[in-house]
Amino acid sequence: MKIIDGKETAKLIKEEIKAEVAGIIDRGDDPPHLAAVIVGDDPASHTYVNGKEKACKLVGFTSSIYRMPDETTEQELLDVVTYLNNDPEIDGFIVQLPLPKHIDENKVLETIDPKKDVDGFHPVNIGRMALNLPSYLPATPYGILQLIEHYKIETEGKNVVVLGRSHIVGSPISILLGRKNNPGNATVTMCHSKTKGLKSIAKKADILIVAMGQPHFVTEDMVKKDAVVIDVGIHRVPSDETKSGFKLIGDVDFDRVASRTSYITPVPGGVGPMTIVSLLKNTLKASKKEVYS
Amino acid sequence: MKIIDGKETAKLIKEEIKAEVAGIIDRGDDPPHLAAVIVGDDPASHTYVNGKEKACKLVGFTSSIYRMPDETTEQELLDVVTYLNNDPEIDGFIVQLPLPKHIDENKVLETIDPKKDVDGFHPVNIGRMALNLPSYLPATPYGILQLIEHYKIETEGKNVVVLGRSHIVGSPISILLGRKNNPGNATVTMCHSKTKGLKSIAKKADILIVAMGQPHFVTEDMVKKDAVVIDVGIHRVPSDETKSGFKLIGDVDFDRVASRTSYITPVPGGVGPMTIVSLLKNTLKASKKEVYS
Repeated sequence: MKIIDGKETAKLIKEEIKAEVAGIIDRGDDPPHLAAVIVGDDPASHTYVNGKEKACKLVGFTSSIYRMPDETTEQELLDVVTYLNNDPEIDGFIVQLPLPKHIDENKVLETIDPKKDVDGFHPVNIGRMALNLPSYLPATPYGILQLIEHYKIETEGKNVVVLGRSHIVGSPISILLGRKNNPGNATVTMCHSKTKGLKSIAKKADILIVAMGQPHFVTEDMVKKDAVVIDVGIHRVPSDETKSGFKLIGDVDFDRVASRTSYITPVPGGVGPMTIVSLLKNTLKASKKEVYS
Repeated sequence: MKIIDGKETAKLIKEEIKAEVAGIIDRGDDPPHLAAVIVGDDPASHTYVNGKEKACKLVGFTSSIYRMPDETTEQELLDVVTYLNNDPEIDGFIVQLPLPKHIDENKVLETIDPKKDVDGFHPVNIGRMALNLPSYLPATPYGILQLIEHYKIETEGKNVVVLGRSHIVGSPISILLGRKNNPGNATVTMCHSKTKGLKSIAKKADILIVAMGQPHFVTEDMVKKDAVVIDVGIHRVPSDETKSGFKLIGDVDFDRVASRTSYITPVPGGVGPMTIVSLLKNTLKASKKEVYS
């Protein structure tokens, strides 16, 4: 059994990005510029956006944050999106989700210029992904692909089972791993709340990707011997083992499952640290016009 | 065993569309207007486009065909696409594929206004489909959904196996049947040329959708008792049973497989006749601004 160390992988990739940015600056060009828009004062959202800004600084990107109050109207937000679409200084930007309830999230996401949609949530980017055309991939699935590449895990011809069908993880990773590509070329089965016999389907997986959002959902009886297990879940639960009185756990019961696997991601320190790396990579691609010319 | 009669279903749905169009005209409004662009003189393409025009006339749509020579440049074609995008008289249009090799198909398809893309091939429509947002669905998968609905075949919680991952059939039908929707909510496995153990995977399917493009690929040992079998293949093969000296067969060995199934589509007369119906339905939706307001 080998631990897939997302923290270490993320660190290595950030070093690569940093070196490339240094080269860009040395050539006299502008470093990539990522902007983030955040509406309201959800503490988790502010934590995420601050983390993104910190990562930008670390690799040498320029970073801007547009903080807007909770009572921002949809039109005001759309105006900011349009402004960022047209600002040639900005290579890519994200609108931090969730948005306040009075704002139509889909409308906002569809207003972002696909060329600057480094979160990869615009239908154009999702559609291009499904059509195996160049696109910005959504952060978490892209992070999973990078871990698979970094650990040289073979996907071609493998049975991949994805638990969960969210638009940001389960559904796109299912599409990505079934594509004629590398990583890809897997036989993918996507399971969800309506799936019958989910345990026995999971147990047939060579690669099991878990994004259900249920703490310790996957137990040892659901995992094939020597499977690769990728855990996207993250939950804060009470614990008397830690000083803080809580700990973070995943969708997989790591302590029971790990010994059966060939590779497994821990929580925390598995998929999590890779999502910001994906955003940085997409922004770098945007600044180099790699996806859209 | 019950035959899924695509010819009859298509006829019934065309009658419904015709009645609705008659109502539109009675109210003094313009009937839906579908345009088709065809480049070059591929006989099969001309047959398809003529078939589409005939279907339009039957249901009362206005139909226009833009026939362009084989030596049309990419820019000339893009100019026609832009013209049709901007012509308020046209509700929807298609560019018949394949295009001559000197023209970039993806570039042409991405230039079509998604609001008029009644073939459902634009990345925006594929992406919206994946995100379970309103979209124009590609003709063949949409035709399959309509057959499933017409025959009241339950998909929720069923194991669906799709053989083939083309962008126009296998990949979109896999996405559609896995969505939180009705039809949908199935547990979908998509198989392709790199899949290992394809036969045993197919045999577990409650609903088997075959779009491999290989004559009589599916034999009785690959089909579970009482499965639903949907055959998208169509091949012209020599035959001494017919006057013409050839006959049409599917990807499924119908004669051997049919008796094991609960429902099966014949070839011809199964999925085929439904594709034009899908195009008509998308054009009707376009004229009513049902997908994009």
